Amino acid sequence: MTLAVRYLAARTLDTAPAENPPPGPGEVEIAPAYVGICGTDLHIFHGDMDARVAAPAVLGHEMSGRIVRVGPGVENWSPGDAVTVMPLRWDDTCPACRAGHQHVCQHLDFIGIDSPGAMQQRWTVPATTLVRLPGSLPLDHAALVEPTAVAVHDVGRAQVRADEKAVVVGGGPVGILIALVARAAGAEVRVVELSAHRRRLAEKLGLTTWDPAADDLAELVGEWTGDAGADVAFEVSGAQGGVDTAVDVLGVRGRLCLVAIHPRPREVNLHRFFWRELTLVGARLYDRTDFERAVTLVAEGTVPAEQLISKVVPMAQAPDAFEALEGGGDVMKILVDCTDDSQGAAQ
Amino acid sequence: MTLAVRYLAARTLDTAPAENPPPGPGEVEIAPAYVGICGTDLHIFHGDMDARVAAPAVLGHEMSGRIVRVGPGVENWSPGDAVTVMPLRWDDTCPACRAGHQHVCQHLDFIGIDSPGAMQQRWTVPATTLVRLPGSLPLDHAALVEPTAVAVHDVGRAQVRADEKAVVVGGGPVGILIALVARAAGAEVRVVELSAHRRRLAEKLGLTTWDPAADDLAELVGEWTGDAGADVAFEVSGAQGGVDTAVDVLGVRGRLCLVAIHPRPREVNLHRFFWRELTLVGARLYDRTDFERAVTLVAEGTVPAEQLISKVVPMAQAPDAFEALEGGGDVMKILVDCTDDSQGAAQ
Repeated sequence: MTLAVRYLAARTLDTAPAENPPPGPGEVEIAPAYVGICGTDLHIFHGDMDARVAAPAVLGHEMSGRIVRVGPGVENWSPGDAVTVMPLRWDDTCPACRAGHQHVCQHLDFIGIDSPGAMQQRWTVPATTLVRLPGSLPLDHAALVEPTAVAVHDVGRAQVRADEKAVVVGGGPVGILIALVARAAGAEVRVVELSAHRRRLAEKLGLTTWDPAADDLAELVGEWTGDAGADVAFEVSGAQGGVDTAVDVLGVRGRLCLVAIHPRPREVNLHRFFWRELTLVGARLYDRTDFERAVTLVAEGTVPAEQLISKVVPMAQAPDAFEALEGGGDVMKILVDCTDDSQGAAQ
Repeated sequence: MTLAVRYLAARTLDTAPAENPPPGPGEVEIAPAYVGICGTDLHIFHGDMDARVAAPAVLGHEMSGRIVRVGPGVENWSPGDAVTVMPLRWDDTCPACRAGHQHVCQHLDFIGIDSPGAMQQRWTVPATTLVRLPGSLPLDHAALVEPTAVAVHDVGRAQVRADEKAVVVGGGPVGILIALVARAAGAEVRVVELSAHRRRLAEKLGLTTWDPAADDLAELVGEWTGDAGADVAFEVSGAQGGVDTAVDVLGVRGRLCLVAIHPRPREVNLHRFFWRELTLVGARLYDRTDFERAVTLVAEGTVPAEQLISKVVPMAQAPDAFEALEGGGDVMKILVDCTDDSQGAAQ
């Protein structure tokens, strides 16, 4: 019997023995090593997604691990292989899939939300979801591949080019990753973030930050861009004020990439979209190309995983980690260590 | 002494003798023939743009006419040439101009709003604004070139391709022109319009229309697109409900082209932009390529000018025409006839 971190009801997690189904045809069984806690996991924890999540539910979709066994018909994969998982299953028949946009399939199964996730010691997934990790990449670092793939997708959707000026509104984990990926694409980046702790972390990564509560952003953008306005903005805050800022900083033909989830409609200054011929582009998830690029960025250190991982906790402490993240304290990314050794050490 | 239609104050126009400056270096003097009344002219008439318009102001920017005389240094143009005017003057030095987007110059002079317009018997403009009209094109039809150029620009910004499905929300003059231009680009088009008169006119032009007050748009879009949603939507209504409709009809990766002016912020379902990876693209005015394409579309009858022109009135009746359009009655495009003969006939 192995352990799993389970969502039971709003604000209630436990760590309990779980049975994992053996890998069927085309499936593999993985021993997850590290699993990151994501903003979406927090939404589930809050109870905001009870309509979609069938409790008890195993959470987790930012992971690294090793294959334990492979099911019938699985080729090219062997026990011991280091992997991460692109946690998407699509139906290949809906209009989105037929148009080649499988990642936004109209009947998407997002593994870790719509079906059991990675925060357990054994996890069975389709072999088609596997992404190979280079042997040189530490598995704790590799848990950042999935959120990095999000950032790669976002920067791609915004079509960021070298020497462009990009403003990232919201300096949480995804915002920081977007800033790093945009910088790697040759852009000059500014991160707008209210939290002093997050600004400090961003500065340590060599990113310039602005505090929207203290700085005059209009003036700063004017100085920075010679009154042209920024080429690109990323809305990663999820707040009305973030939407306003992301629209206001853009120059003529600027592109606003919408990354954050806004459950309710937001007021948008459409006149400015008209006047400056702005573009708003929604970005969701990633495709395999994004994932593979993310593996490279984490492996080569362009995404400095070590500096982004605030803490690694054993499974039994996962509930506390969710509480800590919810408090919005001085943490960036927390990983849950699912290896056998770690659980022993904690008990 | 020649006549001009002048805006004096909110809801007050007159027709009065006016003196037109002789053409300076690089300028030409035109005898406007026909001048269309545009939605922007109505905004000025309402007094909504008093901060920008210096009364008494000569309105009008949708025009056709003939050159009367040319100023020093003007080449390639001669008295008698049939022309329309792309009514934009830019500074060529601001960031928008330097980026190649002169039509949204940060210090744009829109002739007919920021400086004297065409609704007069003599009009002096820079020769650089002239667009040549083919001899075969009747001058009353040619007054539709400017709004057609808007539609060409919008369809270009939305990147409409053959066999795509496009929904035009708002069936006024610009909406109808967009529908015609999108159809000419090979798209299948639906026009959403509340006014029965406007729907009838659109149907006469061979366009299929939907009545948002009576039809179940979600169902109609589903049937029409096999549940995929439309590829493109144009928001031309200026209303909150129009924004909602334009977002709701789109399928995965759909593009919403924002054409209408929304003076106040609007509520936008950003979650749908995220979920379906939609794009919103603002579109304003036109460039010379759009204008030249518009001349062709009107000249070849793809834009059937005759069916779009509801009425032609002499200058003395322009104030009444503004009132009629404001009433939103059964009219589409009204032209003011500025030729000498017409004024005589009216007196």
